[in-house]
Amino acid sequence: MSIPVIVDCDPGHDDVFALWLAAGHPALDLRAVTTVGGNVPLEHTSRNARIVLSVAGVVDVPVAAGASGPLVRPLVTAEWIHGENGLGGPVLPEPTVPLDPRTATELMSDVLEASREPVAIIATGPITNVAVLLRDRPDLAPRIREIVWMGGSTERGNATPYAEFNALVDPEALDLVLRSGIRFTMVGLNVTHRALVTPAVRASLAAVGTRTAAFGDELLEFFCRTNDEVFGMPDGPLHDPVAVAVLADPASVVVRHTRLDIELAGTETTGATSVDFDGMLRREPNAWIAVDLDVERFWAGVADAVARLA
Amino acid sequence: MSIPVIVDCDPGHDDVFALWLAAGHPALDLRAVTTVGGNVPLEHTSRNARIVLSVAGVVDVPVAAGASGPLVRPLVTAEWIHGENGLGGPVLPEPTVPLDPRTATELMSDVLEASREPVAIIATGPITNVAVLLRDRPDLAPRIREIVWMGGSTERGNATPYAEFNALVDPEALDLVLRSGIRFTMVGLNVTHRALVTPAVRASLAAVGTRTAAFGDELLEFFCRTNDEVFGMPDGPLHDPVAVAVLADPASVVVRHTRLDIELAGTETTGATSVDFDGMLRREPNAWIAVDLDVERFWAGVADAVARLA
Amino acid sequence: MSIPVIVDCDPGHDDVFALWLAAGHPALDLRAVTTVGGNVPLEHTSRNARIVLSVAGVVDVPVAAGASGPLVRPLVTAEWIHGENGLGGPVLPEPTVPLDPRTATELMSDVLEASREPVAIIATGPITNVAVLLRDRPDLAPRIREIVWMGGSTERGNATPYAEFNALVDPEALDLVLRSGIRFTMVGLNVTHRALVTPAVRASLAAVGTRTAAFGDELLEFFCRTNDEVFGMPDGPLHDPVAVAVLADPASVVVRHTRLDIELAGTETTGATSVDFDGMLRREPNAWIAVDLDVERFWAGVADAVARLA
Amino acid sequence: MSIPVIVDCDPGHDDVFALWLAAGHPALDLRAVTTVGGNVPLEHTSRNARIVLSVAGVVDVPVAAGASGPLVRPLVTAEWIHGENGLGGPVLPEPTVPLDPRTATELMSDVLEASREPVAIIATGPITNVAVLLRDRPDLAPRIREIVWMGGSTERGNATPYAEFNALVDPEALDLVLRSGIRFTMVGLNVTHRALVTPAVRASLAAVGTRTAAFGDELLEFFCRTNDEVFGMPDGPLHDPVAVAVLADPASVVVRHTRLDIELAGTETTGATSVDFDGMLRREPNAWIAVDLDVERFWAGVADAVARLA
Repeated sequence: MSIPVIVDCDPGHDDVFALWLAAGHPALDLRAVTTVGGNVPLEHTSRNARIVLSVAGVVDVPVAAGASGPLVRPLVTAEWIHGENGLGGPVLPEPTVPLDPRTATELMSDVLEASREPVAIIATGPITNVAVLLRDRPDLAPRIREIVWMGGSTERGNATPYAEFNALVDPEALDLVLRSGIRFTMVGLNVTHRALVTPAVRASLAAVGTRTAAFGDELLEFFCRTNDEVFGMPDGPLHDPVAVAVLADPASVVVRHTRLDIELAGTETTGATSVDFDGMLRREPNAWIAVDLDVERFWAGVADAVARLA
Repeated sequence: MSIPVIVDCDPGHDDVFALWLAAGHPALDLRAVTTVGGNVPLEHTSRNARIVLSVAGVVDVPVAAGASGPLVRPLVTAEWIHGENGLGGPVLPEPTVPLDPRTATELMSDVLEASREPVAIIATGPITNVAVLLRDRPDLAPRIREIVWMGGSTERGNATPYAEFNALVDPEALDLVLRSGIRFTMVGLNVTHRALVTPAVRASLAAVGTRTAAFGDELLEFFCRTNDEVFGMPDGPLHDPVAVAVLADPASVVVRHTRLDIELAGTETTGATSVDFDGMLRREPNAWIAVDLDVERFWAGVADAVARLA
Repeated sequence: MSIPVIVDCDPGHDDVFALWLAAGHPALDLRAVTTVGGNVPLEHTSRNARIVLSVAGVVDVPVAAGASGPLVRPLVTAEWIHGENGLGGPVLPEPTVPLDPRTATELMSDVLEASREPVAIIATGPITNVAVLLRDRPDLAPRIREIVWMGGSTERGNATPYAEFNALVDPEALDLVLRSGIRFTMVGLNVTHRALVTPAVRASLAAVGTRTAAFGDELLEFFCRTNDEVFGMPDGPLHDPVAVAVLADPASVVVRHTRLDIELAGTETTGATSVDFDGMLRREPNAWIAVDLDVERFWAGVADAVARLA
Repeated sequence: MSIPVIVDCDPGHDDVFALWLAAGHPALDLRAVTTVGGNVPLEHTSRNARIVLSVAGVVDVPVAAGASGPLVRPLVTAEWIHGENGLGGPVLPEPTVPLDPRTATELMSDVLEASREPVAIIATGPITNVAVLLRDRPDLAPRIREIVWMGGSTERGNATPYAEFNALVDPEALDLVLRSGIRFTMVGLNVTHRALVTPAVRASLAAVGTRTAAFGDELLEFFCRTNDEVFGMPDGPLHDPVAVAVLADPASVVVRHTRLDIELAGTETTGATSVDFDGMLRREPNAWIAVDLDVERFWAGVADAVARLA
């Protein structure tokens, strides 16, 4: 039995592989894709999601646009790493997948209501859309199997010294999601930094040999070049698919049940995800935190999923 | 030429070895010791400093008591790791070193004014006394060669997920010291966690064979046992002497010039030391941050200094 | 030419008179009513709005429910002053006005798009719905003539020493609305505290002699009794209709163009509306602040509007 | 029996009259004067205190300098209202009163220890020195009869919309003093704004006809002129002596026992004194708040005290 999932994303190079892993992995049943403003503005992320599903031949999954920005803060984007349109690298074809006229909340609500089993939500951007869903439709909480989010860090950040980009963009949304009590797994930089796009990884993905794999390789070529220019490190981390792996192949990611709080008020540390592994704060555990990754198994799973697509 | 130094501390097991390293190392000239409330209350830290200098035969260095608590926050102490009196383990002898009647500020001021060369200050507890000195005697700033502080972290904390104990106890003091513009080196958990008291380290220190070494071994025995009970890890880190090593043997500690800010206002992260290695915040570098330690060389230096004492 | 207006409210006794003033005053053309959770939860405020429009014979204005709570904070309500259902006092009839199936955002958007002239929005509760509209439909900003809000204070608050209830409930919403740049008028406690329901006021409203007036008198009787019990002051202030008066009869309210900021982060003062009449902060004016009320003229206008209803 | 008092001040025009009222009023026994950086830097406030005591012939009261700035924040001063030296107006004579070599803490400690009865402290600037005393000598708390402070406001501020100058300059000091549990009276702008220097007040003070009165009149002439230029209001409020009146003539000031908290963390409201007259926060009363002033009686008392001086 595959797990029904909704992927909420802001593509972005790494989101693409998250979408493909969710669409191609036999353990998952991708029911809907929703988009949020994040890496680049909403119009780009919505279009990008449709393009990369079209390329992969995934034409029967509805794609709806959600929040253009965070719950209460102004949007900050990251074009400097993803390019102006969010998918720097390949020439982008016109998408054949249409934009669903529903809002993200409406689409997610419809999917949740129509499913016999609870549906998992995987979020790979600022978690605004999930917060809006939980705020506007709290009655649907029992229909959500769990939420897995790429974001945060148990150690250092990548947007400020202690804040990861997705967490910094909409910390209030994360706070709202945590308060819901729905099972929540954070897949942060501490683990995604192990999912490096090494030359070997690129070679193994390119070796898949499909149209999708070729498109992906163009994305990774741009991604590695930009990482090299910005960070002096060509083997950049492909964060988002690790969140999908938590559900698709639980054996590939080690998680711990502990306490997670999000800093909303710091002068230097807003957006820091405070993970209390040692119980120093004596609060109840409220989240599962990814702490280790079986790197080879993870990349093999990605290649395998891509191979199942067009 | 040895460097004149003042050690400001809150003994505490690891402070003891900081004091002995400062007193015994030929590159340093220990001119004064001042104490602060921190690991345990001020009456204990002041008495402990006098005891461990007495044990080591260091009887000509004045010891003065400073602030009993932080600049503006209530004091939090750490008896659970250091024992009720701060030096759990050995039977503590009566100190022969007297308590200087001057305040810490007065003693530090007198030493700074009397010295022909600028004097370095090494602080191994909450940095309150140094802040009070800089606030009350800003005219003495040019007489301070530099400040080296054990505290903070570039990664995770030990008092809350992102705050180290000394930084959490008096973050406003650190902020005030940073604003002074005096050369400042932070020796945080990221590096001191490498200075582990392994069985081999204990053996090499015990092998010194002096009265001081024997007393130290009793301290370390208690220290390792408590670490084992509290953290399930007998090889605890001996934080404080690493700050002394920065001055005594600069080749043993790697430092980087970068930006350091202290979080004063967070709900979850007050006391976090935000270190911007990557220049994400585009602020001017204002501190040197210890980032690596030559562990063997460090312990050899400690043993060597202890061997020079009684 | 009357001004087209949308009233966004959380009835609540004083909201009732705001609705009636907007519906009955010849200078205003009430196009829609939207509701928000505030004084009491959303199901009550939505039903109450429909009831009091039904009582007044205003059956052609659509009423839609909006946010059940603030953008990011948990909802706090005020049953202790308004009664369990928000309209303590009279026996409440079944409403004949239906609940519009659209969300508040959808109804407001439709009204804004359908109107030839820009439409004013009067908000008399937490300003969540207006923030959601501006966040989700920023393209409609040019169609909003202006926003007038009952909330805040230039002096003391009524929910905490410096925060008024509506401002405290959703300060982030106010911040978002202020950032929109749309003309904004704050009608705070400093002025609404002059709109006291004295025995003379009650008598003049009762003298209108209509069904609506009789219903209103029952509301005011409860309102004054509760004010007497809670504050020892029977002549309570009827805050909300003053915001309507700003548009209906500008000559009755004195406003000043100055700087308004909302405190989001204080430990004691979150929700305080910081109004810088004296330019101490040297920031650009961004809001109009009501500073005085022609009390007699105001009440005469209310009575006049009520007399025009059923 | 007169009450022994220490006046801690930052002269400043209005501090002068506080000092003279404390020195000349028969109900008070002025034992010491300490100074703090505030209206102008410490070197000026220390010199000014000595000058105005010299002018008044008060030559037997020791004057000691305290903190040059707040506990942890950078000092902000107010030369724009008090002139460069803090006492704009008259030609300032050389003081005959010397500067005591002790620190403010030392002088206050000596006075407290030497007195048979508890001593009151009246503070008319940022309350830093009192905080330092309580922090460094908590054992002396029982010897402090009470603390009366000019600062804060129950309504609007004068430095930011909700913060009064003395409270804004060192809010942490106020917090520390409040936590001490010593009886505390706040004399804020809400009351001191009634102590206006009208032409009638100036005439009555000038009519005293002494050297001190003539010097005071020169100060008030500058003070009123500056108030007129800055605020368009020549009758400025003479804040500080009202705090002295609380002790010298309790019948002239109405106080209420209620809850006072100081905002330390607000973005817009740091330094706001949150006074919960209505018990909205359900916390224990911890302070007395001045709420009304018998204006005529107050000024008569000031004139009477001045007349008793040289």
